[in-house]
Amino acid sequence: MDRGRLEAFSDGVFAVAITLLALNLTLKGPLHPSLPHQLWEHRWSFAAYLVSFFVIGIIWVNHHVLIKSIALVDRMLLFLNLVLLLFVVLIPAATAIVAQYMPVDNGDTRVAMALYSAVFVGMSVGFGAIFEWTLHGDHSSQPLPPETHWPARLRFVAGGGVYAVALVVALFNAYAAFILIAVVAVYYIAQRTPSSPADPQGPGESGETEVL
Amino acid sequence: MDRGRLEAFSDGVFAVAITLLALNLTLKGPLHPSLPHQLWEHRWSFAAYLVSFFVIGIIWVNHHVLIKSIALVDRMLLFLNLVLLLFVVLIPAATAIVAQYMPVDNGDTRVAMALYSAVFVGMSVGFGAIFEWTLHGDHSSQPLPPETHWPARLRFVAGGGVYAVALVVALFNAYAAFILIAVVAVYYIAQRTPSSPADPQGPGESGETEVL
Amino acid sequence: MDRGRLEAFSDGVFAVAITLLALNLTLKGPLHPSLPHQLWEHRWSFAAYLVSFFVIGIIWVNHHVLIKSIALVDRMLLFLNLVLLLFVVLIPAATAIVAQYMPVDNGDTRVAMALYSAVFVGMSVGFGAIFEWTLHGDHSSQPLPPETHWPARLRFVAGGGVYAVALVVALFNAYAAFILIAVVAVYYIAQRTPSSPADPQGPGESGETEVL
Amino acid sequence: MDRGRLEAFSDGVFAVAITLLALNLTLKGPLHPSLPHQLWEHRWSFAAYLVSFFVIGIIWVNHHVLIKSIALVDRMLLFLNLVLLLFVVLIPAATAIVAQYMPVDNGDTRVAMALYSAVFVGMSVGFGAIFEWTLHGDHSSQPLPPETHWPARLRFVAGGGVYAVALVVALFNAYAAFILIAVVAVYYIAQRTPSSPADPQGPGESGETEVL
Repeated sequence: MDRGRLEAFSDGVFAVAITLLALNLTLKGPLHPSLPHQLWEHRWSFAAYLVSFFVIGIIWVNHHVLIKSIALVDRMLLFLNLVLLLFVVLIPAATAIVAQYMPVDNGDTRVAMALYSAVFVGMSVGFGAIFEWTLHGDHSSQPLPPETHWPARLRFVAGGGVYAVALVVALFNAYAAFILIAVVAVYYIAQRTPSSPADPQGPGESGETEVL
Repeated sequence: MDRGRLEAFSDGVFAVAITLLALNLTLKGPLHPSLPHQLWEHRWSFAAYLVSFFVIGIIWVNHHVLIKSIALVDRMLLFLNLVLLLFVVLIPAATAIVAQYMPVDNGDTRVAMALYSAVFVGMSVGFGAIFEWTLHGDHSSQPLPPETHWPARLRFVAGGGVYAVALVVALFNAYAAFILIAVVAVYYIAQRTPSSPADPQGPGESGETEVL
Repeated sequence: MDRGRLEAFSDGVFAVAITLLALNLTLKGPLHPSLPHQLWEHRWSFAAYLVSFFVIGIIWVNHHVLIKSIALVDRMLLFLNLVLLLFVVLIPAATAIVAQYMPVDNGDTRVAMALYSAVFVGMSVGFGAIFEWTLHGDHSSQPLPPETHWPARLRFVAGGGVYAVALVVALFNAYAAFILIAVVAVYYIAQRTPSSPADPQGPGESGETEVL
Repeated sequence: MDRGRLEAFSDGVFAVAITLLALNLTLKGPLHPSLPHQLWEHRWSFAAYLVSFFVIGIIWVNHHVLIKSIALVDRMLLFLNLVLLLFVVLIPAATAIVAQYMPVDNGDTRVAMALYSAVFVGMSVGFGAIFEWTLHGDHSSQPLPPETHWPARLRFVAGGGVYAVALVVALFNAYAAFILIAVVAVYYIAQRTPSSPADPQGPGESGETEVL
């Protein structure tokens, strides 16, 4: 078992992606509208930065918990992890597009928000695939009992499903979809944080890992 | 206890943020004013680079010392750490804004410097929250005796408080606030560096970790 | 033996390079053609992102397997690894050039695709040099028997050779070369993934590491 | 002793800085001069990329060897390391400036090359300060005998001195200075690479660590 480099590479990608989010916050400088005016023009950039930052942070925390339970690193896991990272890497670009189109409020805004949601759906699918992989063979050091596989999968579908709902909502109202994604992040942090340690010491804890 | 990935992810974010600071130092190239002239125009970029570099470096050193004393990693700690990193990631953008507005010396300069200070206040609050977390339960491997909690907290407030003072000063004089932040960094490095090893071998050492 | 920092530095470069790929996906924003139109204009950027992402991912997986088998880290290995990373770092820039020139379909498109292929050839040569290094002395903890050296080398030449073929094809038809590179990535992932664990537990497994 | 995070943070900065070098290699795309013409215009960008890449690579290898010999991590070491990294982070910006001004060949070219050399001088001073720190107290796990301190220091001065010579040469002829820096990198790699393993198993080996 060698999880070290899988974690190191993933942590590197998470860290670079979360830091690149702030590249969207550069302003035009003097000789342009006043600084408070420019900051106001960038209000959606700041809101999108906040939401994307915590979505990446949450998926990093979940990745941390899930990978810790893995007993065996094979090529399949490495490639499923690449699929997850493929979408993580897209988040800064998708965040920039959303921030550009939120102020105009037209059809393009809805397309931009649908894209943003789709990136999160893809990330959830990648994360869910890793979770599914842990359910089989001797991949997990704390295997879930077979009878809990379907409940665990349902929790996953419910988690990633919020982003799918946001994708559909975005086609009608971009702002509602954005609020939905933000509320889910806040809810996740608020509900989860006061709980017990993240160490998955038993099968139940490991099964509680969720995708959102 | 698994501090490894918390440290790896945080180190990644610190490393990327500190390296992105230098993206603000690119020049316009030939066909523009002479190179010495352009360097002079960028003097505030270089000054802001220096100050931000050492502020990130100092917070990294303190993070290193504080996390080493932690006995237990739970979700609360992971999310408090995310709050700290949220502000660390903003430092390159805030540094770029300050560097843009320092040469013009008007109301926008003061707003820019207040923003810059506010990012450091946020960073201090995030760091202080992690410190507060270490005071409770069995989170720390070298718990401080309860009677030293308030003195330790006061040192933290004093540390982060310098940035709050800089924020207020910035509303009146941006340059004074910048000098205050720079002096604090120099003071911290000068006073702290010749001291004994950073290993927190006793409660007192751990309590001496400061936020500035 | 100290593979830790070699892996940490390499993983850092792989992680930053793979994340910088997405910098090419930024759009021009409103006041320009509609968002779906801009996305369509960027179709080659997305295709090139996908291919480059998986090529970097595959070389990272192979690097992971090869370095794990190394018994001794000397300066020669460190510098051969730098040669590999020299080309990995060029991938985001080469991807950006390909994405710019694919839509115009002229002689420059063919030059751009030849450059892109050449970067992958260089990467393969760097990786092959590390593999060759493992065949000599007591560099490998699972040395291949001498009679398998030439078959193993041939597999490497076959692997890296696909990129050399793509380079030649690119001079006549850029799109065919691009499809060739993409097909090789898909083939590699599809064929390799369902197989047994990546742990090289014997000389044969280690010899199966391939460059593409 | 806890060298882990010092190494992780430093490796992160080295990895990001070396990867950001390639951001200077983006072209203007179609509707501009032909691609081969643009590549020719960027010839100095490619040359500067190559040289800076290997200079960062060499300092990373030396950092790797030197830090491995350290027995004790104190705040002084952490801040000396920050000084080294301060200049490493400046390398991508200095490389971009050199690449911009090499084609014009005027007084600004000489200023740019002097800046580039000065960044390497600063990096050498930072690295030399860390080396000096290892000579004192019980900082090194393989302390050099006192009578070898001055010879070891002289080797350091000779190493970093090449960059100081390049700085002076740059004021008269930028191209000669660039060739000098490139030749030193090639010489270092050629002469050092075929030698024995990098593991500093004795005081002599540790003392052979050089700065260039």
